[in-house]
Amino acid sequence: MSGAERGFPQAEFESRIARAQAMMQAQGLSALLLTTEPEVRYYTGFLTRFWESPTRPWFLVLPAQAAPIAVIPTIGEALMARTGLRDIRCWPAPDYADEGMGLLAETLAEVTPRAARIGLADGRESHVRMPLASLAALRERLSPRVLASDGGITEKLRRVKSEAEVAKIASAAGIANRAFARLGEIAAEGVRLDEVFRRFQMLCLEEGADCVPYLAGAAAAGGYSDVISPATDAPLQRGDVLMLDTGLVRDGYFCDFDRNASLGPPGPETASAHARLIDATQVAVDAARPGARMSDLYGVMARSLGLEGNVGRLGHGVGMQLTEGPSIVPQDHTELVPGMVLAIEPLVQLPGGRTMVHEENIVVREGAADYLSAPQGSQMLVLS
Amino acid sequence: MSGAERGFPQAEFESRIARAQAMMQAQGLSALLLTTEPEVRYYTGFLTRFWESPTRPWFLVLPAQAAPIAVIPTIGEALMARTGLRDIRCWPAPDYADEGMGLLAETLAEVTPRAARIGLADGRESHVRMPLASLAALRERLSPRVLASDGGITEKLRRVKSEAEVAKIASAAGIANRAFARLGEIAAEGVRLDEVFRRFQMLCLEEGADCVPYLAGAAAAGGYSDVISPATDAPLQRGDVLMLDTGLVRDGYFCDFDRNASLGPPGPETASAHARLIDATQVAVDAARPGARMSDLYGVMARSLGLEGNVGRLGHGVGMQLTEGPSIVPQDHTELVPGMVLAIEPLVQLPGGRTMVHEENIVVREGAADYLSAPQGSQMLVLS
Repeated sequence: MSGAERGFPQAEFESRIARAQAMMQAQGLSALLLTTEPEVRYYTGFLTRFWESPTRPWFLVLPAQAAPIAVIPTIGEALMARTGLRDIRCWPAPDYADEGMGLLAETLAEVTPRAARIGLADGRESHVRMPLASLAALRERLSPRVLASDGGITEKLRRVKSEAEVAKIASAAGIANRAFARLGEIAAEGVRLDEVFRRFQMLCLEEGADCVPYLAGAAAAGGYSDVISPATDAPLQRGDVLMLDTGLVRDGYFCDFDRNASLGPPGPETASAHARLIDATQVAVDAARPGARMSDLYGVMARSLGLEGNVGRLGHGVGMQLTEGPSIVPQDHTELVPGMVLAIEPLVQLPGGRTMVHEENIVVREGAADYLSAPQGSQMLVLS
Repeated sequence: MSGAERGFPQAEFESRIARAQAMMQAQGLSALLLTTEPEVRYYTGFLTRFWESPTRPWFLVLPAQAAPIAVIPTIGEALMARTGLRDIRCWPAPDYADEGMGLLAETLAEVTPRAARIGLADGRESHVRMPLASLAALRERLSPRVLASDGGITEKLRRVKSEAEVAKIASAAGIANRAFARLGEIAAEGVRLDEVFRRFQMLCLEEGADCVPYLAGAAAAGGYSDVISPATDAPLQRGDVLMLDTGLVRDGYFCDFDRNASLGPPGPETASAHARLIDATQVAVDAARPGARMSDLYGVMARSLGLEGNVGRLGHGVGMQLTEGPSIVPQDHTELVPGMVLAIEPLVQLPGGRTMVHEENIVVREGAADYLSAPQGSQMLVLS
């Protein structure tokens, strides 16, 4: 297992911070307060699976004109000290008397003027990772400083990946490519779907994934009706379409794509649906050039597939999270720029409420987009 | 791979709902609004890895005197319909014009009086899974109804597990027991730590885990300094103590415990530290009887190990999340009752900033507690 180099050069974080600070100054924000895993990691490189525990809040303060300050539980001090951050302030969490609010308010007060507006994520796909009661206490302690909308600064920056980030997503996608190429080793007629899920995650790990935070899929005759359910223990049957959709992680970056396979040769309806999905994907990839909009990608896929009405989104950003904004929906007019990494995810609707989905990962380039996943041909993978 | 039965009988959810409703009525709450994965799943059984995507909010409304209502994205309708819920209201997320707030406010208004206080989690370890801007919009739409503290209702209920829940955690722990028993197959002198992490997750899956959301660990000479960092690519060396701490999931329930192993026979300091950890664990397990308090468990372990000052928490609840309240800290005086599942997690401090930790999972019973993990003896596992 040879893995690409881990982490980023310090210049990567300096560049992210400088761009955020320029946007903060343009918006009149004196600092950003970051509370979630991808936000904190984006500006620091702080990478740990410890966020799985909800016990401890973790904070990063990014002043508009100074270096970031971590305000974190003591248990994270050693790991944070290995990032480029020099100012790390800790409290011994859990502390029922004060879960970091005193230290956080003090830190924010120290680095911002009294009239400060401090930006906190409040928009689409965001949440604030601290108890509401803590947030209320923080607002009170900060007064007259106020917590205001961050204007989507971090989300906007994260949309466009650096070459180093693209390489990490490509590395994750390469692992999934190799795992999918070995699907025939683990999936065949008579194998239970939950066993396929289990074994596929093992393939992803064997091929180099650090972890497999997401695996969805389904198997049913001639298409499936639901793509978010856990695996059942039903054995694969001849005529089933098996779909697996993985979000595996390598060095903190996801890929997110799926593959369909037919148990035995696909019937004409299935074969045709798959070919139409591949065509629609290619149409979107061809359209994914700088200046096009996310809504344009929706449009070309919907036209290619004859989709009518609201069928949900047909793709999204991919990066430090399995799915990130923007979304490929008719309402999203975000302009594509080089460095955006997208999941292109068309669907076809089949009779009887069945559906089939296909998904590839690409990166927007100056000219034509590059595939990060190995693009599938019209011919469907056949398992025996 | 023989797995225990999946899901719960409907009576399990009816019982959870009835107890929540009694507490709501006692607190003068007209409804609860649930927004996070474990909260929604606790009252419905809605289980999907799709929460990994931050795009879509998911809501459950639990009126004080009526059946719960799901307010969710259309993509989850089929799966939610397979739970016992009859009232499922959907919007086609993502919808940039209104990400569910209209439907949610309408639903809450329909099932509560105008003067209603609607409970929302706001305490320790909680967060609200929706954008702050959405929350502000919801408050406005709900007026004169108000969102108020849920008083920890769901957290309090979740602390005490039913026998069916205990069986699920025991099943997860059994899988981890079997994976740890095979540690010698994958960990030996010269194997890189990141490869050990990868292979150990594969063992967990092979032994029956649905997924492995958490794996931490470390390896260093005579103890480690940091238990939350990702694996390095350093090969295991003779004299290292290897610690692996897994949170694997089976049917939506975690186990959370660790094992230490010595590369080659442990030195006297390591052997003694391990024996002291096992002793301290047993002292806490012996003390974990109904009527004892979480702070008592901290006290007996601290005394057993001669710990001074605040060394962090020495354990916590385990269940639908890797870690749950309450915590084994001096400040937590929660009284133990039968059905509480706990991770008992003592630590020893060694010279040079090194440490060793040990962790077992138990369930509190009427008399002595039962181990869910296979209790380790004083003798440390030795790898070659």
